[in-house]
Amino acid sequence: MDIHAVNRMSYEEFLDVFGNIIEKCPLITAAVWSNHPFSSLNGIEERVYEFIDHLPPSGKEGILRCHPDLAGRELTSGSLTIESQQEQRQAGLTSLSTEERETLGLLNSQYKTKFGFPFVICAKMSDKYKIMEEMRSRLQNDPSQELLKGIEEVKKICHLRVQQLSNGVGLPTKL
Amino acid sequence: MDIHAVNRMSYEEFLDVFGNIIEKCPLITAAVWSNHPFSSLNGIEERVYEFIDHLPPSGKEGILRCHPDLAGRELTSGSLTIESQQEQRQAGLTSLSTEERETLGLLNSQYKTKFGFPFVICAKMSDKYKIMEEMRSRLQNDPSQELLKGIEEVKKICHLRVQQLSNGVGLPTKL
Repeated sequence: MDIHAVNRMSYEEFLDVFGNIIEKCPLITAAVWSNHPFSSLNGIEERVYEFIDHLPPSGKEGILRCHPDLAGRELTSGSLTIESQQEQRQAGLTSLSTEERETLGLLNSQYKTKFGFPFVICAKMSDKYKIMEEMRSRLQNDPSQELLKGIEEVKKICHLRVQQLSNGVGLPTKL
Repeated sequence: MDIHAVNRMSYEEFLDVFGNIIEKCPLITAAVWSNHPFSSLNGIEERVYEFIDHLPPSGKEGILRCHPDLAGRELTSGSLTIESQQEQRQAGLTSLSTEERETLGLLNSQYKTKFGFPFVICAKMSDKYKIMEEMRSRLQNDPSQELLKGIEEVKKICHLRVQQLSNGVGLPTKL
């Protein structure tokens, strides 16, 4: 998919394709459409990051709260978004031992109690062992550090989702 | 549902219940949770409106773009959110004559071409005749007036959705 194809899209088509580059936040994609036409796919990402950076702390926390727990209730109930499902599978989170699932559940819970938002990490760049190590380490951070760190990870996830779309993966068949 | 029950919710429960008070924008509900505990349900609404008012124009346009067309493709394909489906039904938009559907389709299309976002109206406070009259009239507005008007309607829709939740309608059965 090249940028010319993107620039020919209506906002509805743009949302169909890019609506979940920030997990469950189509509002951000829909806002960024105001800046079209775009010079490149990177240009779209930059507008997304700018929009996020200008949100108040509550808005950034809101973005994190729209993310599912790793190996949490959405994975168990099959209600993850397609993108999250794929990312959690690639990181080995769909094939945990009972002990690993319990450990991760406990860490998720401690993390949410401390910070009021879920632990977000670019799972595709990691694996279950690194993820648990990282959770233990990030649990020591203070809330403002951790908000920054979480948003950094959101941007990494967004980058990989856009890359995947630019390779034509996950595009609606009609395009 | 009283405010004490709301203040006992985890952010996940809060999102389950209030996640769609702004159509397809759980980010806003999730952001507002940062202000809990709340003094009242009105207090939740006020935080929502504040959050929206502080967004840049692109963010406000983004909110409108997350709304479905009236009697549009989502209604036809059955992919409306439960709330929108109910609102469009109450306004008589699910039982249009062929001619009415065509007229509304044309008005939707003219509106989106002019403004780059869909026509949003609190359908529950209206009916199909008033809606078409209002579309014709609002098509004459300039874009900045119309952005304000659209956001006013979003707030009215939010108010009715919160009211319905406070009456216990649409609550997940587990609560």
